[in-house]
Amino acid sequence: MSIEDSHDTPGRLARRNFLKTGGAAVAAGTALGATLGLSSVAQAAVPAQRHAASADPMLAVEPFYGEHQGGIVTPQQAHTYVAAFDLTTASRDDVIDLLRAWTQAAARMTQAQPAASLDGIGDDRAAPDSGDALGLGPAGLTVTFGFGPGLFASEGKDRYGLSHKRPAALVDLPRFNGDQLIAAKTGGDLFVQACANDAQVAFHAVRQLARAGDGILRMRWGQAGFLSGPRKETPRNLMGFKDGTNNPPTADPKLMNQFVWATAADAPWMQGGTYTVVRRIRITLEHWDRTELGFQEQVFGRRKYSGAPIGKHHEFDAVDLDAQDKDGNPLIPDNSHVRLSNRASNNGAQILRRSYSYNDSTDFYIERWPPWRQETEYDAGLIFVAHQSDPRKGFIPINEKLSKFDLMNQFTTHVGSAVFACPPGAKPGSFIGAELFSA
Amino acid sequence: MSIEDSHDTPGRLARRNFLKTGGAAVAAGTALGATLGLSSVAQAAVPAQRHAASADPMLAVEPFYGEHQGGIVTPQQAHTYVAAFDLTTASRDDVIDLLRAWTQAAARMTQAQPAASLDGIGDDRAAPDSGDALGLGPAGLTVTFGFGPGLFASEGKDRYGLSHKRPAALVDLPRFNGDQLIAAKTGGDLFVQACANDAQVAFHAVRQLARAGDGILRMRWGQAGFLSGPRKETPRNLMGFKDGTNNPPTADPKLMNQFVWATAADAPWMQGGTYTVVRRIRITLEHWDRTELGFQEQVFGRRKYSGAPIGKHHEFDAVDLDAQDKDGNPLIPDNSHVRLSNRASNNGAQILRRSYSYNDSTDFYIERWPPWRQETEYDAGLIFVAHQSDPRKGFIPINEKLSKFDLMNQFTTHVGSAVFACPPGAKPGSFIGAELFSA
Repeated sequence: MSIEDSHDTPGRLARRNFLKTGGAAVAAGTALGATLGLSSVAQAAVPAQRHAASADPMLAVEPFYGEHQGGIVTPQQAHTYVAAFDLTTASRDDVIDLLRAWTQAAARMTQAQPAASLDGIGDDRAAPDSGDALGLGPAGLTVTFGFGPGLFASEGKDRYGLSHKRPAALVDLPRFNGDQLIAAKTGGDLFVQACANDAQVAFHAVRQLARAGDGILRMRWGQAGFLSGPRKETPRNLMGFKDGTNNPPTADPKLMNQFVWATAADAPWMQGGTYTVVRRIRITLEHWDRTELGFQEQVFGRRKYSGAPIGKHHEFDAVDLDAQDKDGNPLIPDNSHVRLSNRASNNGAQILRRSYSYNDSTDFYIERWPPWRQETEYDAGLIFVAHQSDPRKGFIPINEKLSKFDLMNQFTTHVGSAVFACPPGAKPGSFIGAELFSA
Repeated sequence: MSIEDSHDTPGRLARRNFLKTGGAAVAAGTALGATLGLSSVAQAAVPAQRHAASADPMLAVEPFYGEHQGGIVTPQQAHTYVAAFDLTTASRDDVIDLLRAWTQAAARMTQAQPAASLDGIGDDRAAPDSGDALGLGPAGLTVTFGFGPGLFASEGKDRYGLSHKRPAALVDLPRFNGDQLIAAKTGGDLFVQACANDAQVAFHAVRQLARAGDGILRMRWGQAGFLSGPRKETPRNLMGFKDGTNNPPTADPKLMNQFVWATAADAPWMQGGTYTVVRRIRITLEHWDRTELGFQEQVFGRRKYSGAPIGKHHEFDAVDLDAQDKDGNPLIPDNSHVRLSNRASNNGAQILRRSYSYNDSTDFYIERWPPWRQETEYDAGLIFVAHQSDPRKGFIPINEKLSKFDLMNQFTTHVGSAVFACPPGAKPGSFIGAELFSA
């Protein structure tokens, strides 16, 4: 996607998405409100019609059903909550029932409805929805599901008769140079990514889905993330640099087919899906902030304030990897991030990044990098999320190179990691991953 | 404050605040942009004038200087980052210099300027601002400073000659029933609370201030928080109940003088300040979500969906603590949160709550409460912030009672705690806390 598309303002999204799908949400919300007398639920939907032109990001509606799952090429919402779960059941039917329940609940929540109907519930049991998103509106919610290696085989056991369906592209990620992975933030049999224009709406979705799996799964990790907004310009990351300038354009279906959507080669059930890599990358912000401006720019290969590649003047000027200074040295250093991650340095490999910043208060620990062997305070950084048609041609070779040479590694540590096969979108009446479980 | 005031929409705030103070920000921002050619900085300010009526919460401007500090009776912005620091210097002058620098930097940042001028900086040193909030706008930023007990005496030492000026109201908080305080989330010599309508703007402010103290202080804890929005109704907390219905009205100066602003009785330098209690309250959401609806309502003493007190029909119906059922039992249980925290149950004591939800991903630990002695997953809950004229008549007696009897304690654990004396606002040219350091 071009930057202008990828970092569309929530306002523009709200309007555009309402025109796509708003009507259904209004009808559903109103009916529900009428049944329950829940004024707040009704309010979530009714103003969507009244204020369609108000560009309120809380009123944006994203479709759930479709050829592809939402949350992959969907322009980024302002917040995310991503989570991974380990299955504890031995029953294939349990997994199918869970995916059916998840599909229905997710479809409802993207339309600002509770995870299940609150109609006629008594006070003698737990409500089927925790209620904390009532009245907040759809907020552009998307829910994306994925399957980790453990669904196909766990400790050598083929628990669900699926091992022969594991795609070759769903590889176990290798250890990368510098990895300091924390088990409690790594891996997982099932993946849920909720993105919305409100932090509570995103977290609410994951909470309801986690609860729907009570007794057959266990949460492995969860992580909130955010982007700053509204984003009329390319957003700056926590390092103060503009981030996201070089993503492939999602508006180009040919490029999306080439780099993002899975081919059915060895796993027909993945046709229209994608492979998703998640990395929790902690950034030593307090050391970064003390680093000379010129050095920061060498690390990125870009100017900090304008976002222009070194040697150029404007953010969207093409990166010229051949440019030299008067001594014949490269203007953009060999070990700069922009050079090492550039398509031209990776045999044309590209991935679709859809990352968020995270900020989990403070956590004092000793950093691996020698100059910073001292207490590090902020537990903040990047929830790196990248989609691709095959990680063996995408994230893995790119990160093999980055993890060895990138100057930025002095300030970043990968502490969490996971890879998932995200199946295609569900058809109404069916469920996410149905093709995987068909005979 | 009434609910309508206390949970004003960001939109309305933006407009109102711009009328108050927008002009100065525009002028300052434009001048800065012109000097540096930083289009993003200029953009942060210029649209404030052009779109004064656009009600964009990113363009809201709050004054920094004044009789009181901002962020106390200021209607709540959508995000916060609160932090506490321990002083490591032995020099009184270092502390004064720090407070001067903090005052100037905070005043600049509330007007969407970098913490210090970027004018003429070279690339051979660290920039005086990390740059991650460039172009985001003022976003209604307020920065509130406070002094912990350690400023007056630390391990028995009067490091800065201030011990005779410690207010009697700045007591060390007692241990409360059920406290499970984590040292790394408790206490602190200095307090900074940044609130803004954007998470990155709030965090950015604290980062710059932390860095300004390099060499004379150490971060003790930091914590991000959020509210859902926009908030046309009382916001629901992570437990799904409406939260904030019974705060004293900030629009009533008499009540604010009675309950919020410090009296100068034993510490004249605190005239116009307040005492602030911060508690990090973890909530076992996964257990709460499995609890019967009727029991949840008994815990709160309110209906979940409407927010009405039990026995009433509407959120703003008065709480009737005398109402009985047909057997003569109280309709609102003796151990319900609304009864125990109610003014009538606390000899008229009131505090001004200004809390945020927090969501720090997952952290598996064993919960203290017997029924839940199992792994708890979400590290989420409430950053409770309460302002009062005297904690001995506010938070302490109220929480003594709550910590013993509140049904809600089954689901909540206080894991962090701090108390601070927040001095009055600074006058232009002076600095926060100047009166404390005057001879």
